[in-house]
This record gives sequence, structure tokens and C-alpha cells, in this order.
Amino acid sequence: MCQLLGMNANTPTDVMFSFTGLATRAEEHKDGFGIAFFEGHGLRHFVDHHSARHSPLAELVKHYPIKSGNVIAHIRKATQGQVSLENTHPFQRELWGRYWVFAHNGNLVDFHPRLHAAFRPVGQTDSERAFCWLMQELAKAHAAVPSIEELSRTLAELLPQLNRHGTFNMLLSNGQALWAHGSTHLHYLLRKHPFGAVHLKDEDLSVDFAAQTTTQDRVAVVATEPLTRDEPWVAFAPGELKVFVGGAPLPI
Amino acid sequence: MCQLLGMNANTPTDVMFSFTGLATRAEEHKDGFGIAFFEGHGLRHFVDHHSARHSPLAELVKHYPIKSGNVIAHIRKATQGQVSLENTHPFQRELWGRYWVFAHNGNLVDFHPRLHAAFRPVGQTDSERAFCWLMQELAKAHAAVPSIEELSRTLAELLPQLNRHGTFNMLLSNGQALWAHGSTHLHYLLRKHPFGAVHLKDEDLSVDFAAQTTTQDRVAVVATEPLTRDEPWVAFAPGELKVFVGGAPLPI
Repeated sequence: MCQLLGMNANTPTDVMFSFTGLATRAEEHKDGFGIAFFEGHGLRHFVDHHSARHSPLAELVKHYPIKSGNVIAHIRKATQGQVSLENTHPFQRELWGRYWVFAHNGNLVDFHPRLHAAFRPVGQTDSERAFCWLMQELAKAHAAVPSIEELSRTLAELLPQLNRHGTFNMLLSNGQALWAHGSTHLHYLLRKHPFGAVHLKDEDLSVDFAAQTTTQDRVAVVATEPLTRDEPWVAFAPGELKVFVGGAPLPI
Repeated sequence: MCQLLGMNANTPTDVMFSFTGLATRAEEHKDGFGIAFFEGHGLRHFVDHHSARHSPLAELVKHYPIKSGNVIAHIRKATQGQVSLENTHPFQRELWGRYWVFAHNGNLVDFHPRLHAAFRPVGQTDSERAFCWLMQELAKAHAAVPSIEELSRTLAELLPQLNRHGTFNMLLSNGQALWAHGSTHLHYLLRKHPFGAVHLKDEDLSVDFAAQTTTQDRVAVVATEPLTRDEPWVAFAPGELKVFVGGAPLPI
């Protein structure tokens, strides 16, 4: 199974600590990794078909503090599609003059949607097919970029149609919000004042967020499994969709 | 003026040497840089709104030998659009299940094409508008991915319509070929057997390609200005379009 990491914050924040925790799990998830950082409307998008444990790109991400309001990362254990760059999550497309980024954990069986519009998969994964179908259906549902609330309602109608085909833990962002859909394994955490010291579950590493933050900062972190030992991670219910804006969940 | 670098090869080749030459020119072109590497259908795409002289990402590109058949790089001196990540070349879109990458050097005046299809600019540059228009017109001209020859004929009709608006030195690739259009400043070079030692123009750095290549290797390099001192660079004529496949130019 692949592992997902998402971050949404009200102040540009780096994910060096969380990504280090994720990369530790890459021994078993060795078929590539990817991470996308929104900076305003712009996007940095790193993919490598080498393990996040050994990739020079992953080293850069662990040590270069890229500050972002929305991040999606993924480490891959291939289920469908060969190990190659075009099959490495997250995937990226443009819609309504905004970049969209998508990563998926799970496996969709017999999922071959009719893709008749402007979004076609480049690789061979069920995940990229699902992303292209989502983009196509969003484009059909709205003439121009709608509000976060409207997008969330449309996604709440579309995502169960994907979930029906198998396991569909998913992260999606357009730089304004982070949408997360839980199917089997997905957790989230809200970090806000008062911040304290936290410890990674998988590695002997801790960080004191109090030293790096202000009382106004809010950060939401989404991950397949909780990344830290001492924080109140919440499990997604099967089929649950959440949208995070400015580091906090919005009602859908 | 911005600076372009393109590479097309019949064997996956790194561009550490040429990119180092390009980055040396970044003192004056300090408004960001970007580089895209095709690996099969897959794509690595690095952008930074910091100068290629100081960016940790640029350091990675200079020292991590990413082997690719098609590369497009760009260092930017802003003419239109603010200095930000979404205005940093090269730009990327998907069409017909292939990624397309585009970089532009020059300035298009009063260029506000009607963009009514699936390609919208995310940033504010004339360049990204031109790319979106090109993708839109290619999508209209062909129902699915056509041959390189057909694509080249369509581009030969479209590019003069852009060139009419100003300076339009351009690189475009879909991972199968590298198209280069010269308007004012663009040069190319064909490297093949027998390979020898070459020296960068802007920096005291040389490389002996004979030690790294086989007699079968062919590489085409395109750059705004010649990057090396001792090789036969050829200037593009104004309005000239060339397409490189497997390290050699194809007739159009």
C-alpha cells in the first residue's frame, strides 16, 4: 500500500519534519515518491522513481525549507502500472487557470471510465485515470472556478463513484484548499496554539513547533497512518470527505 | 532577455555541463529558472523563482546526472508578469495523453488570443498565453497525437502567427521531439562521433565527451547564445523552425 501526506496551513509552512517521517516508511514503499508544493498559484512538483530513502531529490526536500500553504506527497508501492516516472504520484493538471494536484492510495478494480474530454492519462495507473475522470467531471459541472464550498459539494457527489471500485484514499488540492477522502486508512491532525514538542513515530527525531510558530498559525496534516507519537490524530470514517482551508476543516 | 537551453539525444544524456554554462549567465537573469527532463513519457519539472546561481535546486541539477532524451531549460529576466513561481518557464500541460513543455525568450506585444478551450494560463506572462494558444490550436488541428512530421507542419503554420506579435524564440517538446523556433537569437549544435573535449564560454570548465559517449551517440543542443568556444554552433534564421529527433534535425 502506498502512503499519503498532505498539509494545509494558514501561513506558508515547510514539511521537512513530516516528510522525513514519511520517507522513513519508504523501505517498504520503494517504487518512487513525489511531492508537490503550492506557492500562491505556482507549483513545485518533484517526482522520482527511486525510493524516498535514497533519492537525492528526497534529500533536497528534507533539507531545503520550501514554505507552502498546500502540500501533497506520496510514496509508492506499485499495484497497477510499472515503476516509471509517468506512474509516480502526485499527478498534475491545469483546470480553469489553476493547477490541480492529486495522489491516491488504494486500488481501483475494473475502473475504465469514458474519458472524452481534455484530460487523458499519460501513464498506466488506475489512479491517474481516476484523476482525469475527476477533472473531466469537475469541468463539466462548473463553467469557471467555483467556490471551495461548491467544489466540495461536487466532489462529495463524484468521489463515492470512485470509491465503489475499490480502495480510494485520496488527496487533492488546487492551492486554495486540501480535499482528503478516506476509504480504509487515512488520518488527520490539527496543529494550533499552544504548539509543543512532538516526536516522529518511526524515527528518533523530534521538533519543538513552539519555537517556529506564532500563536496565529494553524496547520492541518493528513497522513495514511499517524506520523507522530504524541498528538491527537483522528481517523477518517470510510467514505468521509474533508476539506481543509487555512489549516482548519470547513463544513461540507 | 531570457536564455533558453534545449537538448535532444538518441541516448538518454545528462545536461549538467550545458546547464552549468547556462546558470553562469544567471547573474543578469536572476528572476527564476526552470528545467524539464523527459524520461520516456514521464517528466521531471523543476522551477524556482530564485536565480540559477544561488538556488539549491539548480545545484541539484548541476550535480545529479538526470539522463534524458529531451530537456528544456530557461533562465528568466522578467519582461511581463511579476517574479513568481507561476510565471517561471518552462510551462507544462497535457495533450493527447502526453506531457508538453514550452519555454519562450522574447516579448509578445498586444497578444491576447481568444482562449476558449481547455488550456488557460495560471500566471500573467505573454509566454504562457502563447503556449496555451498553441496547445489549443494543436488540439483543434488533430484528433489524436499525430506524427512528428504532421505536428511540425501544423507548428510551421501556427508559429508565424505568434512571431508577428514580437520576439518569439521558443522551445517545445512532448518527449518525442524538440521543436525550436528562432526569431532573433537562437543557435544549435549537433554533437556526434568523433566526440572531443569542449570548453564552456562563460566559465573555466571543460569536459571530454569522448570519455562519456559511444560512437553511436547523437546529441542536438539549442541555446540562445553558443555555450561552448570550440564547436560549430549554427544561428537560426529569423522565423526558422527546426525539429530534432534522436539528436538530429528532421526535414520539415
